[in-house]
Order: sequence, then structure tokens, then C-alpha cells
Amino acid sequence: MGLMANQEQRKLMVSVLYLVSVSTIQYSFGSQERHFKWEVAYTLWAPDCVEHSVMAINGQFPGPTIRARLGDIVVIQLTNKLPTEGVVIHWHGIRQFGTPWADGTASISQCAINPEETFVYRFKVDKAGTYFYHGHYGMQRSAGLYGSLIVDVAEGEKEPFHYDGELNLLFSDWWHKSVNEQEIGLSSKPMRWIGEPQSLLINGRGQYNCSLAAGYGNSSSTSPPECKFQGNKQCAPQVLHVLPRKTYRLRIASTTALSSLNLAIGNHKMVVVEADGNYVEPFAVPDLDIYSGESYSVLITTDQNPNENYWLSIGVRGREPKTSHALTIFNYLPISASKLPTSPPLITPEWNDYAHSKSFIKKLLALMGSPKPPTNYHRRIVLLNTQNKINGYTKWAINNVSLALPPTPYLGSIKHGLKHAFSQRKPPENFPNNYNLMKPPTNPNTTTGNGVYILSFGITIDVILQNANTLNENVSEIHPWHLHGHDFWVLGYGEGRFSQKDVKKFNLKNPPLRNTAVIFPYGWTALRFVADNPGVWAFHCHIEPHLHMGMGVVFAEGVRRVPKIPAEALACGLTAKWLMRGNHT
Amino acid sequence: MGLMANQEQRKLMVSVLYLVSVSTIQYSFGSQERHFKWEVAYTLWAPDCVEHSVMAINGQFPGPTIRARLGDIVVIQLTNKLPTEGVVIHWHGIRQFGTPWADGTASISQCAINPEETFVYRFKVDKAGTYFYHGHYGMQRSAGLYGSLIVDVAEGEKEPFHYDGELNLLFSDWWHKSVNEQEIGLSSKPMRWIGEPQSLLINGRGQYNCSLAAGYGNSSSTSPPECKFQGNKQCAPQVLHVLPRKTYRLRIASTTALSSLNLAIGNHKMVVVEADGNYVEPFAVPDLDIYSGESYSVLITTDQNPNENYWLSIGVRGREPKTSHALTIFNYLPISASKLPTSPPLITPEWNDYAHSKSFIKKLLALMGSPKPPTNYHRRIVLLNTQNKINGYTKWAINNVSLALPPTPYLGSIKHGLKHAFSQRKPPENFPNNYNLMKPPTNPNTTTGNGVYILSFGITIDVILQNANTLNENVSEIHPWHLHGHDFWVLGYGEGRFSQKDVKKFNLKNPPLRNTAVIFPYGWTALRFVADNPGVWAFHCHIEPHLHMGMGVVFAEGVRRVPKIPAEALACGLTAKWLMRGNHT
Repeated sequence: MGLMANQEQRKLMVSVLYLVSVSTIQYSFGSQERHFKWEVAYTLWAPDCVEHSVMAINGQFPGPTIRARLGDIVVIQLTNKLPTEGVVIHWHGIRQFGTPWADGTASISQCAINPEETFVYRFKVDKAGTYFYHGHYGMQRSAGLYGSLIVDVAEGEKEPFHYDGELNLLFSDWWHKSVNEQEIGLSSKPMRWIGEPQSLLINGRGQYNCSLAAGYGNSSSTSPPECKFQGNKQCAPQVLHVLPRKTYRLRIASTTALSSLNLAIGNHKMVVVEADGNYVEPFAVPDLDIYSGESYSVLITTDQNPNENYWLSIGVRGREPKTSHALTIFNYLPISASKLPTSPPLITPEWNDYAHSKSFIKKLLALMGSPKPPTNYHRRIVLLNTQNKINGYTKWAINNVSLALPPTPYLGSIKHGLKHAFSQRKPPENFPNNYNLMKPPTNPNTTTGNGVYILSFGITIDVILQNANTLNENVSEIHPWHLHGHDFWVLGYGEGRFSQKDVKKFNLKNPPLRNTAVIFPYGWTALRFVADNPGVWAFHCHIEPHLHMGMGVVFAEGVRRVPKIPAEALACGLTAKWLMRGNHT
Repeated sequence: MGLMANQEQRKLMVSVLYLVSVSTIQYSFGSQERHFKWEVAYTLWAPDCVEHSVMAINGQFPGPTIRARLGDIVVIQLTNKLPTEGVVIHWHGIRQFGTPWADGTASISQCAINPEETFVYRFKVDKAGTYFYHGHYGMQRSAGLYGSLIVDVAEGEKEPFHYDGELNLLFSDWWHKSVNEQEIGLSSKPMRWIGEPQSLLINGRGQYNCSLAAGYGNSSSTSPPECKFQGNKQCAPQVLHVLPRKTYRLRIASTTALSSLNLAIGNHKMVVVEADGNYVEPFAVPDLDIYSGESYSVLITTDQNPNENYWLSIGVRGREPKTSHALTIFNYLPISASKLPTSPPLITPEWNDYAHSKSFIKKLLALMGSPKPPTNYHRRIVLLNTQNKINGYTKWAINNVSLALPPTPYLGSIKHGLKHAFSQRKPPENFPNNYNLMKPPTNPNTTTGNGVYILSFGITIDVILQNANTLNENVSEIHPWHLHGHDFWVLGYGEGRFSQKDVKKFNLKNPPLRNTAVIFPYGWTALRFVADNPGVWAFHCHIEPHLHMGMGVVFAEGVRRVPKIPAEALACGLTAKWLMRGNHT
């Protein structure tokens, strides 16, 4: 296969050795401002060996990795170089305490940055962990606007586990249909679904028309040919070089538009130690489910036969997969990366083996000493997830309201009392008692809306995410819900309809803190968080087309406590008009 | 071919008869406000029988025709329903006296309208004629954002020619590559040219993978099959129904992204009576050249054999054509539209027969009684048109400056004295004496810029557009230059380098008034206009990718006289900041 020449191998040996010693070097600096100057522009790129337009940062896809240390101030000066589109970037997992305008959500935290204009994101990273960033306007994440954001522990501090080196893995999925056409299809009557992705990408690299694992004998005339990469092709896999008898931290994040994934590394167990920037009680698994919006750290010990290489593979879960596994080589140096593993890549568990997924997710428990949830909640919001039709258009709705974001961002309009900026009607706290979760919705009252859940500052909120049947008989889908501005405790998962008696099954002792949690088909998931972060925060399904079709809600809390919002975040819609008039309502 | 069922034919007969009598009906109303409520959104459409994303207005492609009467106020309430793109619409040929913020040029006259926001265009139509409108942000015109705008003479007035009915023809060209990908290619290093269009469209309809004229015997295995249109397909030609022994006014406009066109109607002469909304001395031609940005009215007399139909065809001029002719049927009622003309469609003159083009264009003279140009000019600006490379990027430049529009529209920044909004350096009035027009440019000093030509109010400006060689040896291209806010007199065309002795060949007696004029390969074109319209006005090559690559300049005149600009036009860039700060610089 020729993935690497000898000279390259030697160079990489050096960098692996550097990585091993990096913890001692890095920790000699104090907390600081980390400055980045970025330009977002389209470029032609071949993420999966097929050329396509990609939304790149400084000409790179995925965007540059941000690496900072707990307590640092990250400053990103973002210039929009798209011809006609606005842009924003969301720093997924960063809670933005004190800087809610830097959350990077168009229509919610700020006005989209216009072409040729610059916006400065400035925020503190106050929790070590594995994060990522991505576009949060229209479906620009699907266009490739994403990258990794890694926060190391503070100077002099140590992670609660040992590792000799680390490897970074950002997963995504990729379509050959342009995002513009995907959006048009979703907004068409009848709706045209985007379908399954053409490829899965590991650090922005996949192989559509060839296979790294073509050499395993059972290839037929229909199976793809072996991949040949001339030089440094954009779709050549990033080989993961390791040394034998070491422990590596794999930082893993998924920014897929749609796909739930399962990761496995041939012969190697993974010890899960972190989820969404929060430590968990370590536990070992042979494979790992990861949903869009989630991140994990796992520890791998390179204790296998050092004369072999191993496949790292990801495959689709939760939807009938039509997409090949993404592969790369877990390469035991000093042997050649081009030596194929002796066994073919591992096969992902059956896509609909939800028992496997649930068994995994229930193993996630907060590391001892983690913050515990309040024992009682003040307000419970039950959110029914349904697929609906509104005037023939297919939508996703929450308690029968499909979110249609307003042109004026909520943060500014709420702060400045501009009540015409969005519906003042309170969105529903629950759904009708007689709603049949097991049947396609009838939804005579489904509507679009943009009302806000106003949360009294400092109270404890329980959210029950309730799944249901889609418009198709006997189909209920997985939805990973992501909350901005917060971590939440995941108190429990259950089957069927949530009821009061389920409360006693809640884990209040060591529930994991996360920013993203999944609901399984026909099931419910219970979350708890404290509304202690002044701002306006999106809470939504992290599947890009689902959000585009209305699958989200908006929480506002303590907005009066938000300090002066930079004018740059308000230069659109009614806030711009109001400020340009000299603040006269 | 079955273009029309019998019932449809009868309906159309009725509408033709209505058209014939329309002049008497229409003229009984006075001048008024004409209100339009438009939404711009992407839709899936098959302009040339191949489905593609199209920027539509109210779900229509092309957008609705605006029909108004001289003296009317046209009010278009435009809502942007694009997911992430701003939008503006330019009313091509309307001078916008007193309303320069309504000219619809992003970065020049207004801020682009953000998604979900509404801008109200309100302007007077003060000259009868054939106009059109189109997007003027990025390359949104190429995405299909265009339509016709027709201004009838005032109540009680008559056109200076007689006709019994009229037909409206809007020409465009169409690519299967998305506009986004076209833009990326043009901005790539090395540049990737958009190539020739896949199809030409007549009123938004063309046929890519089939031919209306397949039945003429000389078809080989490679020629396309006959078109079959089931029902009311989006690419079925709009048949032009006429009655024998009548005179029809054909209103013709070209909003092509690239193509220069030639129009012919089998057996019929055309009498040219109007160009760009200005009357010309009538003259007869067998075929008509039309460049992007131009409009014409021609009179056709249906004096041919009434038992036959005739082809109307357009083909490409000025570039080696790789695109099939666009065709439709000129149908003499009451015979069936499905009866094929006896002869095949006319063949367009050789693409490089510039003598033919020049002969045509020099026949255009103002109708007697038209406004005459001032006999002297106050300022002459010579604009050299060159293709250049800047840091490896291919650009078009004017006097070695390639226009890169700023994020803050000039109209607001000049009016409010915001000098940081654009380069305060005056762009050059001329080009070096020793520049060799016949060679590819060497351009050691080529740069991007956004400086403005500030024109003293009321003075007479001569512009000499000087063509040159492109980056390829022995190639010089056609460029149709369009001026906003004005008509200009076309004083003359010449070969090679313009020199002072050419002035005596200027036509000051009856030069045609136009808003668009072409420069021929290696030639020059001389224009004159009076800087009497307070505002900031684009002057640019109307070829969409050429403008995108910098082929334009900006004129500002009498901006102090511009009345208060609506805040909605200023809600971006430095004007928004300045106004939000309470007008403190």
C-alpha cells in the first residue's frame, strides 16, 4: 500500500517520541491568551478521494486544532471569506461563562458574521477535556466547518490517569451532494432526505472509491479496488503511529451530520476515562459507541504483538448502514505502516443492536469526586420528539412546535427587551397525556415557532427527552441532544413513556456530567442541570438535518445579568435597528 | 412533438387576442404604486430538463415579471428565505434618481439583506422601456435570480411606433456546476474557468439532453434525441403564438452570465426600435446581436406564409461556442404549434465574425428628438481592461487595479465620512503610455483595490474603455460594460489604441443612449455621461465571472445631496457600527 516512505517513518518516530515527553515540556508554561487568526473560505478538497467544495479554515480541512490549557483565554479572530454567506463558529462543550455572545450560534447568541467582516471570539476555557468546534448556521457544519479543541489541565496539575502519548481523532460523515442541495431537498415538498453518507471520515480523511482493506481475499468484482495514494493525497489515511508497551490517550470526538458511530481497534481494549470534557470512572470496552456531538478519551495500551499493525475502524450504528467503514492503521513502530494487519478490520456490531449501545452508555459514571447533582429539581420540562408534517413539509417538532429561528439573535433581543423579535408565547412544558408514542403522529396542532423557555436564574431544571414513532410505522430514531452553555447530569435512560415512578430509578449518586445525551428509539432520557449561566442557550438534536428541520428548543436564563454585549454581535435584525435609532424602542 | 394540446391552443388564442387589445385597456389607468411581495429561496427546478438548484422568487424561475407604467412607484418587499446567504436585487436600467440606496448592489448601494429579513425597494420608473432585474451579490445572478421589468409609456402617451401585440424574451445561460463551485474554481490557484454553458435559456427554458429540431434528417448517432415533454415540464419551450398579418413588439433582454448571443427568427426581419430603454432610429436586420446587460425592442411583422411555423433561435457569439442553440417556435395561429417549421433553425453567424457585430452595433442611432450629449467633456477617464495574475490568482483589472468590494457599502460610508471603509487612494485615470495592448500583460504592479472615482457633481464624463490582450497570446475578449444610475451616450467604437485623433470621429449628433456598451477585441469604446445623479454607482463588465474576478470600478457623485439613507440599507460593516455608537466617529 505504501502509506509511508522510510524517511517519513523516521520523522514520525521523532514526533511520537516528542509526544511521549510532551507532558513535561508543556506544563512549564502558565495560563495565557491563545491567539488564532482564521479565515473561513470554500476550497476544493477531496476528503474521501472525490473532489468537492469544502468549507475550510485557513485553507485547511478539518480546521486547525486549538490546543489550550485550563484557565487560558482563547481568542479567535474570525474573518468570513465566503462570497455571500454569513458564518459563525460554535465552541462545542465550552460553557462560555460570562461570554454568552461567544457561543457561536446564529440567531441565538450573535448575528452571523457577514462576508469580508471579522468577529473576535474571546472566551475562557475553564475545564480540561476533549472538545471540538463547528459551524452553527444553516448546515455549514455539514460543509466541513469543524475542527478539534483540546484543553489540557492547568499548569502543575495532572490528569487523574497516566498516559505516555496521545492521538487525536475527529470523526465526521461526508456527502457528495452539496450542502446547498441537501438543504433544498429537506425544505422541499415532498421532503427529499439526504440519505446515508457516501463516506465516513477520520480527521477529515476517508476513501470512497477504494478500500484500504481490499487485500483480504474475499473481494469480488463489486468490491472496491485497493487504494493507491500518490504522494500526500488529501484522502490518504492519517496513520496512527505508536510505540509498543506504552499507554496512549485517544481523544475522540464526533461531529457527524447524521451518523452514530462505533469505534474498534483490532485486538485492543479501550479504557474510557473522559466523556464530553468530564472524567468518568474508568471502564474497559472492546468497542465504543459515539454519537454526533459527543467526545471521549480512551486509554489504549500497546500490549499486543509488536510485529503487527492493527486496524482502527469506525462504522455506522442506529441506522441501516449503507456506508463503508472508515479505516486507518494503528501502526506499531518501528515496523512499517504499510504492513497490513493480519486480520481484516473488525465489523461493527449490528446497527440495530440497541442492547449493546445501552449497555455501553449505562457504564458511564462520573469519576469519584465529580460534582453531584442537586437532589431535587425546581422545574421539569418534558420534551416530546416527533416527526411531523406542516403544510406538506416534513419537520421535526418538540411538543408539537418545530423551531424556526428568528433573524434577530435572542441574546440581544431579550437583553434589550425587544419583544417583537420572537414569539412571546411560552413553548409547552409537556405533551398531551393521550399521545400515542408507538404510532406515527397525527399532529393536528403542529406548528412552527420560536418561543423561548425562560428559566429562573439558579434553579434546577429536569429535562425529560421523550422519543416516539416517526412518520413511518414502527420506526423510532436515535437523537443525540446537545445543550449549550452547560453540562448536565444524565440521571437515567428508560423504555417507553416516562412516568413519575421512573424517578426513583434516577442515579443521583454518580451520574455522568455531559453536554450531549442520546435518546434511544421509543425511550426517554432524563437530564438535570442548574440554570446558573446567564445567556441564551440552544438545546437541540445534534443531527444537522434534524436541527435544520426544527428539532431544537431555546433556553434563556439570567439574561439581565449578562454584561454589555459587543455591538458586533448585534449588528443585524431588530437589535441593529434599535441600536442605530439610538436605543429608542 | 405535441408542444400544445388543442384546449391549450384555444386558451392561448384568447390571450393573444387580449394582448392585441391590451394597449387600449391599460391606458385607462393613471400612474400608481405597484406593490410586490417577494420571497427569494432556493428551489429544485429543471431549466434545461436537468434538475438543479435555482434561486427562485416566490417559487418561480425566472422571477415574476414586473409591469409598470412611466411615473409609477414600484415597491418590492423582498424577504430573504435563503438559509445562510445575503441577497440584493438590482433593477437593471432604472436610474434610481433620488433613491440610490434602492439600486440593489451589495457593497455599493446597500447592505445585503440577511436571511429571514425584509428590505423594501421603492423607486420610480421614469422612462418607458424594456428592463430586467437580477441578483447583484457574489454570482447570484448565475444562480437564476432574475426576471423582466417592463415600463409602459405614461397614460395617454404613445410609443413612437405601432404594434398589435407584444412578446417578452429574457435570455440567459445555464451551467450544471453549482454557482458555489463556479465561484470556488474562479478563486482557486490555478484558476478553474467555468467553461461554456451547458444550455442557453429563453424565458428560463432550454433543452440540454434533447433537441426540438432533431427531426431534420441530418441527425447522427451523436446528435441528441427529440424532446418529449410530458405535461407542463419546466424545460418545455414557451411557444410564441402570433396571428398572421400583425406587428409584434418583441421585448428582448439578456441576463447571461457569460454568453454574447445572436437572435434570429426564420424568414422574419426585425426592426430595431429600442435599446436599453431608449428609442433608436428604426432599422431592419435579419439577426440581432445581444450582449449580457443589454435589452432591445424589435418589431416583427407576421407577413410570412401563415400555414407555417418558424424557428426562433439564439446562439453564442464572440466565444467559440460549445453550447447548442436555444430554440422555440414562432407559431402562426390558428395552425398547431406542434407543426415543425419546414426549414431547420437558422445558424448563428460565425462566432468570430466581429465585422458582422460591429456593422450591427454601428447602426444604432438615437431616435430623432432624443437628448443629445453635451458637446464637451470635463473629465476623461481611460479604463484599460486586462486579465492579470495576482499572487498566482487570475484576476481582471482596470488600469491594473482589480476591484475587491469592501464589506461596508460605499453609499453609506461616503455619505457619513467613514474613511476607513475603503481605500482613499484615487484609482488611476489612465494606463502607462508604453503598455502593449497586443501582448499578454506583464503587470508587475497589478493589485486589488477598492478606491472610488469621485466625480464632481454635474460635470460631463468621458469614459474610454480600452481593450487589450488577455493572458493568452493573441486573445482579446468581448466585454459588455454596464453603468448603474445612468444612461450614457455611445460616442464611438474603434480599433487598437484610442488616441486623441479619434475624438473627431465621435458621433455627437445622434449617438444612442444606453446603459450597456460592448468593447470589441483589441478595440475601444467611447462613452459620455453627465454626473447628475447623486449616489454611488457601479460600472462593470456584465459578464458575471469577470465582475467576480474584479472587472469593475465605482463612481461616486453628489453624495452630499443624497437624502437620508434608510437605516436598513446601512445595517452592516462600519456604517452599522457608527450608527450603533450613536453617530460618533
